[in-house]
Amino acid sequence: MEPLDEFELIERFFAPLSLKAPGALGLRDDAALVDVPEGWRLAVTTDALVAGVHFLADDPPELIARKMLRVNLSDLAAMGAQPAGFVVAAAFPRDGGTTWIARFAEGLAVDVAAYDVPLLGGDTVATDGPATFAVTAFGLVPVGRELRRAGARPGDLIYVSGSLGDAAFGLAVLKGAAGEVAAEHAAALVDRYRLPRPRTALGPSLVGLATAAVDVSDGLCADLGHLCAASGVAAEVEAARLPLSAAARALVAARPEALMTVLTGGDDYELLFTVPPEREAEVAALAARLDVGLTRIGHIGAGSGVSIADAQGRPVVPGEAGYRHFRGRDGA
Amino acid sequence: MEPLDEFELIERFFAPLSLKAPGALGLRDDAALVDVPEGWRLAVTTDALVAGVHFLADDPPELIARKMLRVNLSDLAAMGAQPAGFVVAAAFPRDGGTTWIARFAEGLAVDVAAYDVPLLGGDTVATDGPATFAVTAFGLVPVGRELRRAGARPGDLIYVSGSLGDAAFGLAVLKGAAGEVAAEHAAALVDRYRLPRPRTALGPSLVGLATAAVDVSDGLCADLGHLCAASGVAAEVEAARLPLSAAARALVAARPEALMTVLTGGDDYELLFTVPPEREAEVAALAARLDVGLTRIGHIGAGSGVSIADAQGRPVVPGEAGYRHFRGRDGA
Repeated sequence: MEPLDEFELIERFFAPLSLKAPGALGLRDDAALVDVPEGWRLAVTTDALVAGVHFLADDPPELIARKMLRVNLSDLAAMGAQPAGFVVAAAFPRDGGTTWIARFAEGLAVDVAAYDVPLLGGDTVATDGPATFAVTAFGLVPVGRELRRAGARPGDLIYVSGSLGDAAFGLAVLKGAAGEVAAEHAAALVDRYRLPRPRTALGPSLVGLATAAVDVSDGLCADLGHLCAASGVAAEVEAARLPLSAAARALVAARPEALMTVLTGGDDYELLFTVPPEREAEVAALAARLDVGLTRIGHIGAGSGVSIADAQGRPVVPGEAGYRHFRGRDGA
Repeated sequence: MEPLDEFELIERFFAPLSLKAPGALGLRDDAALVDVPEGWRLAVTTDALVAGVHFLADDPPELIARKMLRVNLSDLAAMGAQPAGFVVAAAFPRDGGTTWIARFAEGLAVDVAAYDVPLLGGDTVATDGPATFAVTAFGLVPVGRELRRAGARPGDLIYVSGSLGDAAFGLAVLKGAAGEVAAEHAAALVDRYRLPRPRTALGPSLVGLATAAVDVSDGLCADLGHLCAASGVAAEVEAARLPLSAAARALVAARPEALMTVLTGGDDYELLFTVPPEREAEVAALAARLDVGLTRIGHIGAGSGVSIADAQGRPVVPGEAGYRHFRGRDGA
C-alpha cells in the first residue's frame, strides 16, 4: 500500500468511523463537540496500551485496535455509563507502514459498529519505539446514579460476571508458559486475552442495583482491593465459588497453584460488583434477562483488605502479579 | 527518589492536580464525571506528543508536561471553548525513574493552576521506547456558537494573534541549525518552542465575532489551508504584514529565505481567524482589551488554496516542511 500523509490516513481510514456523530465534524476540526442531555453527565476514562506491555508487538493490528477500544468501554461499563464516543491518540509502528494502519482501522470499524460508539477525534504519529495507543472514551450516565468503587457496605454480596483468569492463561499460552493445554482450550484462552468482552449491557443495568462496581483489569484481588479501599470495607471471597471456564478449570485441576492466576491475573474485563443481600433475586433475574453469568463469590465485611478462603475455609494468600498493586492500593 | 508503584505515583503526584474537580473522584475510580451545563456543549480534543518528534528527549520534564497541556488548550481556544479539564495517558521513560515523573508532575501543577484546568484522570505506564504522552482536553462552548474551520467567506479579513515563526526558529536554535543568533534572541525563540502560550482568553472572546478559526500548529500555510478547505474559499496573505518578533525579524533580515520558516514552521499555537470587514474595529478593541497583538495579514477570496504575496505583490511559494500537509489537505 502506498505511503499516505496524516490527512490522507485520517480521511481514508478514520473519518468513516465518525460518520454517526455529527459532532465529530468529520475529524476535520480542532476539536469535536459532545452534547450531554439534561439530567445526564459524562463519564470519561482513558487508557494507554503499549506494545510489549498490554499487547504483543506481533498481535494482529485488527485485534490490537479492538482491544484498545474495548478496555475503555469496560471502564465505562464499570461506572454504569452507556458508550457515547471515543478519541484515539496513536503512535503507529513506522515499519508497519500503511498496511498496518489499514488493518488497525479495519478492526476498529468492526467494533465501532458492534458497540455503536463513534470515533470523535484523534491524533496520529509514526514511532520507531513500541506502538502506543491512548483511548479516551465517553459515556452517559444519569446524574448522581453512576456506579462507583465506593458504596459497598458490610453484608453486601460480591458478584462477578462471566469467568475469571482466562485472559491471564491466554497470555501464558502465547508466551509458552502455560504448560500442557488442549488445543481448543488454548484457542479459547488466547481469544479472551486478545479480545475482551466489555460488559456494556450489564454496566448500565446495574445502576440502582449495585452499591459499588469496578471492572477486573488488574486482577480480581487487586480490583476487589480497590473497591474495598474506596468503600472502607473488607471482602471475603470463597475460592470454590470463582467462575471458571472449562479451559481454566482444566488448568487449575492439573496444577492447583494455577488458582493464583485466577486470583491475580489481569485483563479479564469482567464486572465485579456488590449488591445488598435482599436483592439477590434481582441479580438472578438480570443474569437471565441479559444472558450473562453473574456469580456470587463472597461477601463484604467490616474492616479492610481482601481475604480468600479455600473450600475448607483455609486462607489462600495471593502472591506475585497483581499483589503489588493490591498492596499499594489498600495500604495493608 | 525511591521507586513507586503506579498507585503511589498517582496518589502522590497526580491526585493533587484533580482537587478542584469533584468529578475527578480523586483519580481513584474507573472514570471521571464531567457536568455540562444546559445550553453548553463539550469540545473535546486529543493530541499525542512523542519524544524526538514533538519535543526533545532531553527537554526538561517540567516543560514537556506544560507543553503537552498547552497544545491541547490551544485546540480548545481555536473552538472558542473555555478549558474545563483534561486527562493524560503517559508512557514515562523507564530510565528517568521517579525523579523524572516528579518533575513532570511539578510542571503540570504550575499550569493546572495557571489555566485553572483540573486533571480529571489518567493512565501511566513505563516505556523503554520514546516517552509518549496523550492528552485529551475538554472545554465548554455555548451550543451552536463554537468556532469552526468552516465559515470564512470571501471578503473576510484574516487575522493572526501574537507573532509567527518563533517556535520553528527556536527548534532550529536547539538543533544548531539557525545560523548566527544573538543570545537574547536565541533564548526567546527556544522559550517559544518549549512553552507555547495558548490563547485561552482570546478564543472564547472570538465567539460571535470570528467567522472561522484554527490554531497555528502545523504552520501558517498548512493551517490556513485547512481553514480554506473547510470553508471552500481561498486566502491571500501579504507576507509584509506577517507579525514577527524582534528575534524573527533579525533572522529574516539576515537571511530572507528564513521567511519560509515563518510561513511553514509549526508550533506557534497562535489563533488564525477570519472576520467580516465591517467588524475590523471590534477586533482592534478586543486586542486592546486583552492586551494581545491581533494582526490583519490578508483576506479571503473566492476559489481555493492559499497564496502569499511579497511586498512587491509577487507570489511567494512555500516549500518543504508544512507544504506536504498543506498540499495533502486542499488537494491543490
